[in-house]
Amino acid sequence: MQRNSGAAAPAAASESSATTTTTTTPASSEYKDIVYTLDSGVATIRFNRPTRKNAFTVNTYREVERALKQAGADPAVRVAVLTGTGDMYSSGNDLSNFLNIPEGGPEQLARESAKLLEDYVASYIHFPKLLVAAVNGPALGVAVTVLGLADVVFATDRATFKTPFTALGQSPEGCSSYVFPQIMGPIKANAMLLLGQELSAAEAERVGFVSQVLPHEHFHDAVHRKALEFAKLPPQSMQISKRLIRERTLGVLDEVNRTECKVLSERWLSEECMNAIMAFMARKQK
Amino acid sequence: MQRNSGAAAPAAASESSATTTTTTTPASSEYKDIVYTLDSGVATIRFNRPTRKNAFTVNTYREVERALKQAGADPAVRVAVLTGTGDMYSSGNDLSNFLNIPEGGPEQLARESAKLLEDYVASYIHFPKLLVAAVNGPALGVAVTVLGLADVVFATDRATFKTPFTALGQSPEGCSSYVFPQIMGPIKANAMLLLGQELSAAEAERVGFVSQVLPHEHFHDAVHRKALEFAKLPPQSMQISKRLIRERTLGVLDEVNRTECKVLSERWLSEECMNAIMAFMARKQK
Amino acid sequence: MQRNSGAAAPAAASESSATTTTTTTPASSEYKDIVYTLDSGVATIRFNRPTRKNAFTVNTYREVERALKQAGADPAVRVAVLTGTGDMYSSGNDLSNFLNIPEGGPEQLARESAKLLEDYVASYIHFPKLLVAAVNGPALGVAVTVLGLADVVFATDRATFKTPFTALGQSPEGCSSYVFPQIMGPIKANAMLLLGQELSAAEAERVGFVSQVLPHEHFHDAVHRKALEFAKLPPQSMQISKRLIRERTLGVLDEVNRTECKVLSERWLSEECMNAIMAFMARKQK
Repeated sequence: MQRNSGAAAPAAASESSATTTTTTTPASSEYKDIVYTLDSGVATIRFNRPTRKNAFTVNTYREVERALKQAGADPAVRVAVLTGTGDMYSSGNDLSNFLNIPEGGPEQLARESAKLLEDYVASYIHFPKLLVAAVNGPALGVAVTVLGLADVVFATDRATFKTPFTALGQSPEGCSSYVFPQIMGPIKANAMLLLGQELSAAEAERVGFVSQVLPHEHFHDAVHRKALEFAKLPPQSMQISKRLIRERTLGVLDEVNRTECKVLSERWLSEECMNAIMAFMARKQK
Repeated sequence: MQRNSGAAAPAAASESSATTTTTTTPASSEYKDIVYTLDSGVATIRFNRPTRKNAFTVNTYREVERALKQAGADPAVRVAVLTGTGDMYSSGNDLSNFLNIPEGGPEQLARESAKLLEDYVASYIHFPKLLVAAVNGPALGVAVTVLGLADVVFATDRATFKTPFTALGQSPEGCSSYVFPQIMGPIKANAMLLLGQELSAAEAERVGFVSQVLPHEHFHDAVHRKALEFAKLPPQSMQISKRLIRERTLGVLDEVNRTECKVLSERWLSEECMNAIMAFMARKQK
Repeated sequence: MQRNSGAAAPAAASESSATTTTTTTPASSEYKDIVYTLDSGVATIRFNRPTRKNAFTVNTYREVERALKQAGADPAVRVAVLTGTGDMYSSGNDLSNFLNIPEGGPEQLARESAKLLEDYVASYIHFPKLLVAAVNGPALGVAVTVLGLADVVFATDRATFKTPFTALGQSPEGCSSYVFPQIMGPIKANAMLLLGQELSAAEAERVGFVSQVLPHEHFHDAVHRKALEFAKLPPQSMQISKRLIRERTLGVLDEVNRTECKVLSERWLSEECMNAIMAFMARKQK
């Protein structure tokens, strides 16, 4: 319980700042692939590569991870919102990440990619404040799995959720192998993680993966208004209650994250996976 | 498995008594805030402070705890039913409990309140027979959280469920921080425990928090008829099967209960919580 | 992670064989109570005692266990499908199993029955490939509980699911005391396991026990077509992802299986259980 008092301190300090900050503060100069804004206690992290379906390059992973750490540490922030620019939330991992083979060969690439992913997922696991996802359109792969680590998930009626790991010769990440069965039950989790079946927004709400489906029109405004309300709740209680709900599984999540990334790095080096990805890219280029 | 034979003994002894007791046995003389009745193996514990919305004073907690122990130990009892008098199930903790500051100051009050709550919740965790809740109207706070420890939950179509812990500067109790995510999934649990969103009876049934919604009219009769049926099932099998389902989590529940009460006692002494409760009481008095 | 490479080997070996085997291969000569067929990577295990409602005798348990091991080890098999002949999936344990008292008396019978059941359930827990159940009609008792260990469950609109353990003086098996609460939440699990309430196919889909309800007409064809699609997915990824999802609970499932069978063997020797089974058989013979 020592950690309680430790966490309460920054939250208490934020009380005054959060209520006085009322203008949007773009701090995007430090970011290239995302836009980071702050408004009255709500930090918004927007994936901003719309011409590439907001796919995650190596740099995108690092920027989102950094932005989450910034929001977590900034006493003026009480709620973080993740969303995407344009019609797509994010197509997940940019497969071009696999094309830049470093000097150390595929083994080095697999090792570094696994480390990148593990650190990225860890920044979700350990985010200390309310984490809201605003899924403004289709989401794929790693953009879907980490949603299971958010506290609140809003989705437009055009959002879809798909994790075609098996078809691409890969395996679940983002703690989904552990978290998805808990969220939606093992049968639905298998349909997504083993069989790659797509979930509609309505179905996602029904199985408890999405908090609420909102109309596509004015989606971002509606989410922002709700986030502003959440930011008014007593901040210490919010952080302490979130920790209480999660602290029993934090160690498990870290372990699952590590295992998933290790298994995935082995998958990336397998012939089965390489063939599946090459076949996928060939289909795309037609 | 040694505990099996031990538990089987009283259950076996109850076989004859349960089937012969057919009249209502009011034993309410020992209770002030509740009414305890016994009919054909069904013990009913009714919260009976309708002019105070069946809110729980220090004495109410103790009486319900004692009544659960009585029902658990009495070989004539096979099923216990919890319900409320009037239109409300219970508004939860009576905030006037916080107004009688003992000699030891707020610290002593917080310590004693946490102990009271921990013992109360423990009496739900360890109730050895079928525990049925009959939610006859709106339920709030601690009256909601311990429902997650019941085996069967009936609700009228007028019941609602709300746990506004964060808004009141507090934190989850009744093992809800652990049990709610398992019952309704983390997303719905967060909506209730972090954001204080109210659940309707229909929604509560849909997410698996309520076994069945029954019409408001004749609600108590309908539940009682069902409870009488449950009381006819082989009592040893019932107790042994309940234990089998729960025994893996009993230790966890005790630990979660302890942690929740400790965190809550710290919350009660925080400025944030005191301000939130005073603001709430001021709103009430207008 | 050592186990990964070990498991990948047979899967990799199966790649060629699975795609070349295109004809149905009846291998039923070794089986009496089931029919085992293989088609393009899909092994079908069909309970085949339609005149006895596909109830499980001692021999049926052993044959299904053996068939699962055969399918698990055969590199030509990628997916196993369990189903029943006729209008019923299976009525579960054949109560006539309790009528052949061995020389060692009821104690020996209880011990041997518990061992038989534990081994049978273990063959579900440890099946390494995609396990599909095709529930073609009503399912009872142990035929229901082990469905919680399948990866995909299809059901016709005529399927029903019932586990009347308490009424028969018995207790949950097939890991249902642990798995059912995780699949459908504790409230629905209690309704089935403690109160013996029947689940319809639609309700089973709603609570996450069934992946999809399909029309009764052409049910087997529809399931087979789906299974053939599943069998085309990269086999290493499928096995590795299934293991990733399950490996954290394998030890728990083995322990739960052991405990359940032990408790059940004690139940079988209790007067309460013997009376309940005799009363049930007497009702049946009327």
